[in-house]
Amino acid sequence: MAETATLLISCPDRKGILAEVTGFIARNGGNILHADQHIDFQKSIFFMRIEWDLSGFKIPKGEIEKAFRPIAQQFKMNYQLHFSSEVKRVAIFVSKYDHCLYELLYRFKAGELKGELVTVISNHRDLQPVVEMFGVPFVYSPKSRENKREAEEREIEILEREGIDLIVLARYMQILSDRFVNRFRNRIINIHHSFLPAFVGAKPYHRAYERGVKIIGATSHYVTEELDQGPIIEQDVVRVTHRDSVEDMIRKGRDLEKLVLARAVKWHLENKVLVYDNKTVIFE
Amino acid sequence: MAETATLLISCPDRKGILAEVTGFIARNGGNILHADQHIDFQKSIFFMRIEWDLSGFKIPKGEIEKAFRPIAQQFKMNYQLHFSSEVKRVAIFVSKYDHCLYELLYRFKAGELKGELVTVISNHRDLQPVVEMFGVPFVYSPKSRENKREAEEREIEILEREGIDLIVLARYMQILSDRFVNRFRNRIINIHHSFLPAFVGAKPYHRAYERGVKIIGATSHYVTEELDQGPIIEQDVVRVTHRDSVEDMIRKGRDLEKLVLARAVKWHLENKVLVYDNKTVIFE
Amino acid sequence: MAETATLLISCPDRKGILAEVTGFIARNGGNILHADQHIDFQKSIFFMRIEWDLSGFKIPKGEIEKAFRPIAQQFKMNYQLHFSSEVKRVAIFVSKYDHCLYELLYRFKAGELKGELVTVISNHRDLQPVVEMFGVPFVYSPKSRENKREAEEREIEILEREGIDLIVLARYMQILSDRFVNRFRNRIINIHHSFLPAFVGAKPYHRAYERGVKIIGATSHYVTEELDQGPIIEQDVVRVTHRDSVEDMIRKGRDLEKLVLARAVKWHLENKVLVYDNKTVIFE
Amino acid sequence: MAETATLLISCPDRKGILAEVTGFIARNGGNILHADQHIDFQKSIFFMRIEWDLSGFKIPKGEIEKAFRPIAQQFKMNYQLHFSSEVKRVAIFVSKYDHCLYELLYRFKAGELKGELVTVISNHRDLQPVVEMFGVPFVYSPKSRENKREAEEREIEILEREGIDLIVLARYMQILSDRFVNRFRNRIINIHHSFLPAFVGAKPYHRAYERGVKIIGATSHYVTEELDQGPIIEQDVVRVTHRDSVEDMIRKGRDLEKLVLARAVKWHLENKVLVYDNKTVIFE
Repeated sequence: MAETATLLISCPDRKGILAEVTGFIARNGGNILHADQHIDFQKSIFFMRIEWDLSGFKIPKGEIEKAFRPIAQQFKMNYQLHFSSEVKRVAIFVSKYDHCLYELLYRFKAGELKGELVTVISNHRDLQPVVEMFGVPFVYSPKSRENKREAEEREIEILEREGIDLIVLARYMQILSDRFVNRFRNRIINIHHSFLPAFVGAKPYHRAYERGVKIIGATSHYVTEELDQGPIIEQDVVRVTHRDSVEDMIRKGRDLEKLVLARAVKWHLENKVLVYDNKTVIFE
Repeated sequence: MAETATLLISCPDRKGILAEVTGFIARNGGNILHADQHIDFQKSIFFMRIEWDLSGFKIPKGEIEKAFRPIAQQFKMNYQLHFSSEVKRVAIFVSKYDHCLYELLYRFKAGELKGELVTVISNHRDLQPVVEMFGVPFVYSPKSRENKREAEEREIEILEREGIDLIVLARYMQILSDRFVNRFRNRIINIHHSFLPAFVGAKPYHRAYERGVKIIGATSHYVTEELDQGPIIEQDVVRVTHRDSVEDMIRKGRDLEKLVLARAVKWHLENKVLVYDNKTVIFE
Repeated sequence: MAETATLLISCPDRKGILAEVTGFIARNGGNILHADQHIDFQKSIFFMRIEWDLSGFKIPKGEIEKAFRPIAQQFKMNYQLHFSSEVKRVAIFVSKYDHCLYELLYRFKAGELKGELVTVISNHRDLQPVVEMFGVPFVYSPKSRENKREAEEREIEILEREGIDLIVLARYMQILSDRFVNRFRNRIINIHHSFLPAFVGAKPYHRAYERGVKIIGATSHYVTEELDQGPIIEQDVVRVTHRDSVEDMIRKGRDLEKLVLARAVKWHLENKVLVYDNKTVIFE
Repeated sequence: MAETATLLISCPDRKGILAEVTGFIARNGGNILHADQHIDFQKSIFFMRIEWDLSGFKIPKGEIEKAFRPIAQQFKMNYQLHFSSEVKRVAIFVSKYDHCLYELLYRFKAGELKGELVTVISNHRDLQPVVEMFGVPFVYSPKSRENKREAEEREIEILEREGIDLIVLARYMQILSDRFVNRFRNRIINIHHSFLPAFVGAKPYHRAYERGVKIIGATSHYVTEELDQGPIIEQDVVRVTHRDSVEDMIRKGRDLEKLVLARAVKWHLENKVLVYDNKTVIFE
């Protein structure tokens, strides 16, 4: 497949944006493959994802951004320019639950997730054999109340040294510091085992059981400073009945968690997610 | 179809309950049509719904309860005995939204809901023509902060005079007093336009939009003194995306609300719901 | 709300289409509200739906088509131009089943379906009272093997005299002649009570029961000369178990049928459906 | 957890079956944990799954069947007696697709599937490393048109030598001979990548794409002599749109296939499936 460029844009809504952006691509000989736009009429914000074939594009790859900048400035755009040849570098954080980890390891190996799984970091040694079985480097980073800050410092150091673009919390049972979160704003994806905003925090399946709900869910979201309050990327649900014990809910929930997390990671890696106003636009 | 009897039972779990109950029916020549049991192992409670054909049953209808009582006492059962010839009497409360009302009017008319729709009570006159178009008596019961207590008294009087078994709040925009709720314990079904326990209270679709959820829901539950905290009977959900405005969510939600409410009413009318511990067992 | 114009376009995929169309709108002062495009890469066909605000648009409504024509010719476009002020005229055909009819009558009345329900035509008198209760003219058009051709002729005459844009078969239990279908190509929407292409033809719920499926469905599609083979607009499904009798499936299916049909009609009336190659593109 | 016994019963429907079976367990001091019954009223067949705690049960495990036999004969029962201590022995057949295989390998390893995964047999060597990575013996059994019969003979020999109870075809791209199927009647579970009975046979995703369906599915079923016509155990579906290419459908379908197959295998291993009349009763 030929290389493609993708622009992700958000800006105040105004006449002519779409014509300007598509005109820029057309004038320079680009063939548009996907174009998806959305307007938040309440807040008057324009969003766009546009992907075009670079073969035959008159502007060399390295100069596209510069060429586009005047348009961006004219419309006060926030924008990102990505190329299909880029490979995002990914780190997974995990504790002891292995179902999300396996799912991601399998999907990276199978090539379904576009990106390089650089490392798996855990506060326990339990899943080291699994990670190494898939040929991925494992980092043991134990955490106690006392060493938490230092441990995080070390982790940040590793993540930066390795040039990590995306951090996936695959049922990681530790809360990250504001400092950590801030460092990787909109680049940390978590899976929460409830249908947010229901059952924020600990033991959601137990609380779902107590409440007697008839459907349970899972939610993947970007991590922010507030627990389970970040922008939601994807959710899914499954039916339960009075026959389902807490253990049944946990089991059924695992199948949700791993799929919901995998979808969120996939979309992020394909540059299909735009964050604004603590929400997401998904250009699926 | 021949007449049937249905027993709904809950009691402390113990050996021999099922044998005793089914033995009672078999000894007396009853043919069991449906038997469904459930044990809450955490709390050690036994639940059962058993329905049998009365043709050829040796005990006359009017004496079944007496004959069954010793078994009930032996096992400390809470139980209800229902007959398929019973017709439950239903009142609907409604304000101005008409989608749930239409759905129920249609289903009663079509015979899908087993029961007699005796009256529709509303604090507005808007839906009177609709109700009367379906040939159902309409009661206008206006409510203001000042007259609320009196209005409720009058409503209770009507409900009791008419021998109402079930009250359905079909998007009724008024909060019932504790006194009212208490009088019709486990006999008032409400539809809440969110996936409880998310978005308890007012304007759930607006808050769902604000939060950026990817799925919205509706919940039918028995009304208790605490707002939106009663035992959940049924829930359902539908996907939304960033493209859905609040208005879109309201529109999509309407289709959920009417179906979820209709299912809950149907199960209640068919004696398929047991309430315990602020939860429901649904013998569907 | 201000008036809008909508272009529905399909043409061979080529560089520059999007830039040309959006440029046309921008140059003339139009504010784009929605733009959705799709490329079938297998067949190299470009599809687009674009809607813009006419307030401030420099070309008068009546001349837009003429002004756009050169672009359409340049790119060999099939296109439709619609205005939000247009009201499509709708006829419903029905036999004896009333659930889809009620649903549509309610939605037209509630203003959820954009269009005017001009008439309901039936080969039975059973639903006349329902239709008239909603204030819609009812036409009784009995059909027997002998009079079928004449009856259809009369129906076509009525439909043409009334300027009907869309015909909805709301569980209409008659097969239309090729002549009829051809006259209203892509303007007749049917609801089939199965998950097509499973169970084409008669008694799909009975056959679903016989086959022991665990999920049943409903499908709305445009009618073509071949039975149940037309372009699918929408489908939905619901779970069943071994406990569900044929009657239970029919009952559960009704809820699917009416929602699936209502969605298809809504999209058609909002000019969100493009047909090509016996498939649909839904610009939802 | 204490050991339990499970009876799976089917027989002509008659008065007194439930009382007799539960009486047998109660008289002998058994504590019933789960009891689920179903009557096919159309064919007048009674089905039951009943599980009870063996601690304190007066009849020794080895003599239960003999003790129960008179009841079975009286009611002309087909029945199976299982003990929770039994471990079913499982073989997986696989070709080159690995997603179902991984899912099953993971679930057996995680203990979610009750049974012993004894061997994986494949007509290709591709997945040998994966299988061995999970510590499961791999058998390479190449198949050509010429050697097919011999290859199958060898496979049957292995399966019988190993005492295999259940064979799972995890996207195995070979058709089994009638002889093979007959040898393991109701003990071979296949996953078909469509919503049966739609798209029986080869390339269902391609055909779903061609037909323009809006939902795709997967079906797990017992293998019979007729291709894709065996008793359906489980099905599930996912939405697709005009935007989904065949490749997208294949990708989305993989997630269905692995979950649907895993559920079917789980239920079979927990003795929750009864087959009759080319259908299944699932005592979930």
